[in-house]
Order: sequence, then structure tokens, then C-alpha cells
Amino acid sequence: MSPSEASSSRDLLPASADPTLLETPVGYVDLRRVAANAERVAKYASAHGLGWRPHIKTHKSRAIARIQLEAGAVGLTVATLHEAEVMATLTDDLLLAYPPVGARKLDRLLRLPLTLDLKVALDSVEVLQALATAAEAVGRTVGIVVEQDVGMGRVGVQSGDAVTGLASRASDLAGVEFRGILFYPGHIRMSHEEQGAHLKDVADRVHETLERLGAAGLEPGIVSGGSTPTLWRSHEVAGLTEIRSGSCIFNDREAVDVGVASRDDLAYTVLATVISTAVPGRAVVDAGSKALSKETRGNGGGFGFLLDHPEVVVASLSEEHGVLDLGSTTWRPAIGERVRVVPNHVCVSVNLQDHLLARDGDQHSLLPLEGRGRGPWKG
Amino acid sequence: MSPSEASSSRDLLPASADPTLLETPVGYVDLRRVAANAERVAKYASAHGLGWRPHIKTHKSRAIARIQLEAGAVGLTVATLHEAEVMATLTDDLLLAYPPVGARKLDRLLRLPLTLDLKVALDSVEVLQALATAAEAVGRTVGIVVEQDVGMGRVGVQSGDAVTGLASRASDLAGVEFRGILFYPGHIRMSHEEQGAHLKDVADRVHETLERLGAAGLEPGIVSGGSTPTLWRSHEVAGLTEIRSGSCIFNDREAVDVGVASRDDLAYTVLATVISTAVPGRAVVDAGSKALSKETRGNGGGFGFLLDHPEVVVASLSEEHGVLDLGSTTWRPAIGERVRVVPNHVCVSVNLQDHLLARDGDQHSLLPLEGRGRGPWKG
Repeated sequence: MSPSEASSSRDLLPASADPTLLETPVGYVDLRRVAANAERVAKYASAHGLGWRPHIKTHKSRAIARIQLEAGAVGLTVATLHEAEVMATLTDDLLLAYPPVGARKLDRLLRLPLTLDLKVALDSVEVLQALATAAEAVGRTVGIVVEQDVGMGRVGVQSGDAVTGLASRASDLAGVEFRGILFYPGHIRMSHEEQGAHLKDVADRVHETLERLGAAGLEPGIVSGGSTPTLWRSHEVAGLTEIRSGSCIFNDREAVDVGVASRDDLAYTVLATVISTAVPGRAVVDAGSKALSKETRGNGGGFGFLLDHPEVVVASLSEEHGVLDLGSTTWRPAIGERVRVVPNHVCVSVNLQDHLLARDGDQHSLLPLEGRGRGPWKG
Repeated sequence: MSPSEASSSRDLLPASADPTLLETPVGYVDLRRVAANAERVAKYASAHGLGWRPHIKTHKSRAIARIQLEAGAVGLTVATLHEAEVMATLTDDLLLAYPPVGARKLDRLLRLPLTLDLKVALDSVEVLQALATAAEAVGRTVGIVVEQDVGMGRVGVQSGDAVTGLASRASDLAGVEFRGILFYPGHIRMSHEEQGAHLKDVADRVHETLERLGAAGLEPGIVSGGSTPTLWRSHEVAGLTEIRSGSCIFNDREAVDVGVASRDDLAYTVLATVISTAVPGRAVVDAGSKALSKETRGNGGGFGFLLDHPEVVVASLSEEHGVLDLGSTTWRPAIGERVRVVPNHVCVSVNLQDHLLARDGDQHSLLPLEGRGRGPWKG
């Protein structure tokens, strides 16, 4: 689907809608930049023989996921059961990159369409056993991808031996099937140029794991990695089959700081309005922590910068106030002036929006965020 | 309304619902603690001749606002037009503590019920003039409360003279009416005991403003202040007529750290499930930055602590992962175990929930967050 189709299919606004008059704050997406970002990532992946299975936590939008699939994504990655339910309507190849713990989550997982090639990442025998038992009870076989910690220290088993142990257990159980391994190099957030030694360490760990698996006769069809900060160097990890990089569809301040995107690749901003200039040296906009989130990534301190005045940083945030530091600019905004704020971390800002206001040239539309939230409650 | 009534009116769950089986993460509220918190604040305000006009940004819930009004709140404070529209159904006394900038927000403001005693806080002649013009055009008179900066450096005019200038202008314009002044001591976040000198500075500034207004023949019926960190010392600002303290209805880690609430006063937690114990010395729960928010308040670092294991801190957050540091505890959780996480800042965590799971003794119910989001979109 082209950006134009994505737009027209959701056209809830007059074609002439003037963004400078629209109510703020609102997440604002440039669909042409989205399409360009999708094509760039798909082309990189293809050039290195990798699949791109984007993590849709960044956008939670069916329209944006369609753009990714049209650009060549091999499937989609999700983190929550609600994201899985929503995205299962678009693809037959889904990876839940999160262990489903608890009866209700297992139930939701196993009710996903049977036509789906469904894979689940996990790092414990407890989750593996519970999933296998539940899947076998409904006569289903779920793919298992074993998660390995490659240095972030968040989740993932700690060694190639541990991966092999879980993979072997998965091979022995009914209801599940060993499909491969997964890692997330979330600790690598320095600049693109400085990542070499860190990526080599990741590659060494993955290499060791692949050797152990091979020695045990376990063939990982999937070796899933990637992140947006390491996006263009993903291929340095030998044996990789796919990348899940998600925030590269929009990019954010961190992506620019790390050097994997330019300001021209920023497809998401928060449209905001100046509401106070009473404090000298500052101006306040109506995008606060409930629109941008208080994520402290980025080199320059603060919580974002202005797309059209990149020297201006959001120095502090209250819930409905973003305080702009005017100390490094001659720009002096008037009350009522509109600005576009680039957040530090796009995924958490999108998650705070009711919907996205999407622009395709002069056309504007609203994109619902179907995958946001936890889905219909059932205690 | 009693907590029992609040609960039974929304009873979407079986009375026997076992919270240890419910899907996580979910915001979890103890209605008996809510009622006790409301009564404690109302009693303090009453004892000092103050009104309590709670800021409902904390909960965005009609059921919780009803508990506040039943406890004796004199009206409600809101920050957004959507919050105003929702809460106008519960009270005839509303303060929008935020300047309405832009045609659409002014339009929404002036469509609020005419029966409402509506007051708006602002700090600029631009907003005052636009509001007066729009109000006069529809034959309405809106109350004006002039906001003064008392040290936070966020919004608010900078001196008693500037307050008097805006108040005088408001008195001269049709469509608006000068009603009083407002300040927010958001810079005072040290412990309860250490606030004295800071509160004296605020009191001095307010005193000077009241003198200037008096000299100009302008009588402020409303002198609105208060915050949760300064809650029990609000009366040290002479001339105050009301407090807007909002997060004290639930409390959070900051309230405990500052010393204005005990752990027994914590009425809100995020119910979460342990999903990984693969990394030594850590355990990971399914409440991440999309359930807790990455607010860095609090003395102990990290993003929250466990209500039932207060020595355990949420050391880091990803979007769907909360990493617990087990270095200071002998507790070793099993995968699937439920915990209750106390966030650093309750307001931003509530804003990330689809709804609240409310508990009244053994009864559970779901509370919708009617005031969350921006309301129906109209470009």
C-alpha cells in the first residue's frame, strides 16, 4: 500500500486541513517519510540476506504495519497479546517477543488464528512447559525461539549451553517446536561508529551458541536480532537471519544522536502549541510528559528538540507542560505558535496518543492506534 | 458516595475475582485507602479554613472525583478541555488550571454548561484578550485567575505588579471577570521537614501580590495554591483560600519519600507478574515504562518499589519490562508470582492504564478513566 492509500483509507479530515489550526498536542506523522524509512530498512536487510520482522510496538497501527509489509517485511514482531491479536489480521507470520505468563495470556495466545506461523520467545523452562502443556491441550504446535542475553542484562538465558538446554527441552515436548534463537542488543546505544567492539562481543556469543546448538543437532531456522541504534551494522553478527528493528520506521532524537538517521528521516513529531512565555528565557508548549514521556535518552539532556528549531531543547516536562530552553536560539515564539517536537524515544510517545494525525503531502488523515492498550478486559 | 457504592456501580467483575489470577499489568486501586486519603485531606483543609479543589489529572475518573466531592471538596481542578467536559457532569464549580490557547480549545471551553461557575488560570494578556473576546461573543462571563510564578520557573507572571496588571485588565474587559490568583509550588520537593524556608519565600511573594492587588482595589476571592509534597504545610501561606493537591488521593513513592504519606496511605499500585528470572540478581515483571512511566522522582533511584517488598526497587524499565534489583532482599520470586509496584509518580502511571481495577475489601470492579485522552477529535 502506498502512503496515499494509507491516508485515503482513513480520511477523517478534510483534504485541506491546516495543521497549524489543529488541536494540540497530537502525534503527527509524515507518511512519505515513513514509506522512505521502510524502504531503506527493507533494502538494507535484503542486501545482506536478512529478513526484516519489524517490532510494531513503535506504532501499534495497522496502517503503518501495512506499509512495512508492502515494503518487504517478512512478518511482524509484537510484545503484547493485544498487539498480537490486532496484527494477526495483517500477516500470517508473527513473533511474540515476550514470554506469555499466566492462564489468560496463554489462552489469548492459543486463540490466535490457526493459519498463523506463530513463534514465541522465552527464556525459562517454566514458561516453556506451561506453553507446551496448554498448546498440546488444544492440539496446536507453537514455535519456540529461545532468548539469549547478549549483554543487556534484562532477560534471556546466560550462555550457549543454557540456550541449548532449553532448545533441547522444546524439541522433546509436544505442543511446541524449536525454531531458533533471539537476542536484543539493547545495551548498545553509543554512536554508530563506536559500536564495533560491542557488536563483536555479541557476534562471539551468538557464534558460540550456534556451535553448541549444532553440536546437539539442533538447527535454528531463525537467528533474530537487531535494534535501531545498531541498525546499519546488524550484518556484523554472523549467522543472523532477521532483524526486528522497530523505531526506525519513525526515528527519534536518539536515532539522530546515534547517527543512524538524519533529521530528514524523522517521520514522527508531536505537534504542540506555545501556551506561555511568562518566564524569561523560556517558552512553554502544551506537549508535556503525557504526550512526550519522560524518557531521558539522547546526548543533549532534556526530553526532545524542535524539528524546525533544532537548537531548542525541551529542558523539562510536567504532565501538560513542555518547557523550551531559549538560551541557545534567537527565535522568540509567540503564544499560539505551533511547533513540532521530536521526542527522545518515539515508541513511548506514540503510546501516549489517542491516534496519529498523518500527513501525505497536503492530505491529512487520522490513524487509529489499534494495538494500543491491553485489549478487552477479562479478569 | 462510599467506596462500596463506587465499586458496586461499576461492578464488571465477579465479587470473587481473585487479583492473583487477573491479567497484568493493570492499575490497581484500594478504594478504602482512597476514601481515607480523601477524608484526611478534607479534614486538614477544613481545620485551616481552606477549600480543597483537587486536581483530577491524577485519576481522570468520575468515580474517584465523586469520592472527593462527597468528602467535602469545594469543586474540581482540571488541566485539559476533555477533563473539563467530563468533570463538568459532577460539579458546578470548575477551575481550568491551564491557559486555553487556540480556537478549538476556546470553543470547547465556552460550550461547557452555563450553570458552571467556570474559572480559568492564565498568565498572559494574549490569552486573556482572546478568551474575553470569545466569551463576550457568546454572551458569557468567565472567571479569571491570574497565575503567578512563585519559584518553579515554569509558567506564571513574575511579580505582584504583573499579577495586578493582568487582574486590572481582566476587570476592564467584557466577557471575563477577575476572581483571584493561583500559584503552584512545584519546586518544593524536599522532605516535609525541610520546606520551611521555601514556603516562607512563597508566602512572601503571595503577600506582596495581595498588597499590590489591595492597593489597586482588586479583591481576589480566590487564592489557590497547594501541592502534594507541601500538603500538610499549605496553611503556612497566609491569605490562601484553597488547595488543589491532587496526587494525595492515591499517593506514590515521592509522597512517601517526602514524608507526607506512609506506606499504608498508598492507594494505587500497578499489579504485575514476574516473567523472567534468567539474569542473576534480578527479576523482571511485565510492568514497564508503558505501565509505570519513566519518571525519575524519588530518593532511591529507579522507577518504583514493591508494596509488599519495599526493599526491592525497579532498577530499570523498558517498554514492557520492569527490572527488579534483588540485591537488597532475600526474596526470590518465582515466574508467575504477582507483585504490586508503587510508581514514583502516580499521575503519569494512571494515565497509561486502560482502566483501573478497584478493590473494596473482597469486591473488585473496573473503573473507567473517562477523562483520559484528548476527547473526540475535531481538526
